[in-house]
Amino acid sequence: MKNNKNIRQPKLTLVGAGPGDPDLITAKAIIALGKADIILYDALVNTKILQYAPPGVKKVFVGKRSGKHSLKQDQINNLIVDFAFTYGNVVRLKGGDPFVFGRGYEEIEFAQSFNIETQVIPGISSSVGVPALAGIPVTHRGLSESFWVITGTTRTGGLSRDIKLASQSSATVIILMGVNKLHEIVEIYKAQGKQNLPVALIQNGTLPDERIAVGTISRIEEIAASREIGSPAIIVIGEVVKLHPEFVANDVIRKYLLN
Amino acid sequence: MKNNKNIRQPKLTLVGAGPGDPDLITAKAIIALGKADIILYDALVNTKILQYAPPGVKKVFVGKRSGKHSLKQDQINNLIVDFAFTYGNVVRLKGGDPFVFGRGYEEIEFAQSFNIETQVIPGISSSVGVPALAGIPVTHRGLSESFWVITGTTRTGGLSRDIKLASQSSATVIILMGVNKLHEIVEIYKAQGKQNLPVALIQNGTLPDERIAVGTISRIEEIAASREIGSPAIIVIGEVVKLHPEFVANDVIRKYLLN
Repeated sequence: MKNNKNIRQPKLTLVGAGPGDPDLITAKAIIALGKADIILYDALVNTKILQYAPPGVKKVFVGKRSGKHSLKQDQINNLIVDFAFTYGNVVRLKGGDPFVFGRGYEEIEFAQSFNIETQVIPGISSSVGVPALAGIPVTHRGLSESFWVITGTTRTGGLSRDIKLASQSSATVIILMGVNKLHEIVEIYKAQGKQNLPVALIQNGTLPDERIAVGTISRIEEIAASREIGSPAIIVIGEVVKLHPEFVANDVIRKYLLN
Repeated sequence: MKNNKNIRQPKLTLVGAGPGDPDLITAKAIIALGKADIILYDALVNTKILQYAPPGVKKVFVGKRSGKHSLKQDQINNLIVDFAFTYGNVVRLKGGDPFVFGRGYEEIEFAQSFNIETQVIPGISSSVGVPALAGIPVTHRGLSESFWVITGTTRTGGLSRDIKLASQSSATVIILMGVNKLHEIVEIYKAQGKQNLPVALIQNGTLPDERIAVGTISRIEEIAASREIGSPAIIVIGEVVKLHPEFVANDVIRKYLLN
């Protein structure tokens, strides 16, 4: 602990940074960054956003970098509490929305167990924002009355069982952190006879280096490989994907549309 | 059509205004509003956001007001095209995210059919932002690996068939525009034996006059009636709702926790 004469009120401000494009941050988040005494940020946060912090405020990276392990959730929780008592207002910046698979609520609960004041500021979830900016609406009259957002990486490391049920629904299905399990996901949809259902993979969504692969369930693995799509990417499955301009341009898919 | 010597490039900029709190607008949306030649906005848009428009820019309300009918979607589509050719850049402001049941993609398609340039700027969807600010994370480790967002009001006026499948899943289910069909929804969950599942109704989410009703499927109709919850409100169903502080305070619900 620092020997600080002006100890500030300990606080955790959990802030969603949005999906990548730094202008997709909210006014509320910008205001919150301006009141930070210290900032903890993740790998998926665009560092341009850190400019909104007051000059001299310490910025601590707690995400995963190539070749280096990230901090464990327990370590991050402890850092938040230590920093809140040392510095005051800890702004915890997370990519997308902090309550969408961000483990944000765990941080809130841990801080509250130390009687630290907490606040949450939602961000644009990549589950909705990334498809939209790639030209795919998650809902559209006549095509989709709902959308279902699922994590590809569950606590146990396996694929969420929700994906099987989702493959039976008419919902637009959006899978985050699931690219490494694309083969398993494709098999689940094939088992439902949905080899012709449109699907898109979007890597680095909303950023200048965005990459997209669009196809049908039966072809998507091949197309994604040829486009060299890797993490971080989101998977969008459903009839709305056929609204993407590239879908119509694809030969195999045109055949599907003519059926 | 105005007799305008400096006809500007026709454009449709579809902008999500976020769920209510005017500070939940994005920086990108604020920048877009500053470039508007005319603005069309809906009933769920907080009018404080209109301050970001350049001085003198016309703001046209196209939503539903008590006692007055709103414009039909066809009329709005035609207005957008007329205004784009007359004024230039039409900023179309919608509450929440424009592609989450906002009929936003229909407006994009219609404008594109006239070769009008289009751009979309996502907003924070009330489906994620409203529960978060009410203290309910849509996902939380050990409670929910997914969330499913469904419209309560389908094209045919009936309840979406997705709700029946959703009631069989372990997803957090978020129903927008469904408060008037609460009874039907409750019956679907009861038929699955889920009378003890936690549920919340949130009206005017993120605003100073927010109202919330929290309970179980079996009690929620009674609780919502006593709190006089009406439209616009969202329904959140799932284990994550028990993280809301009021849930623990409720007697009936405490009984459920002790079972």
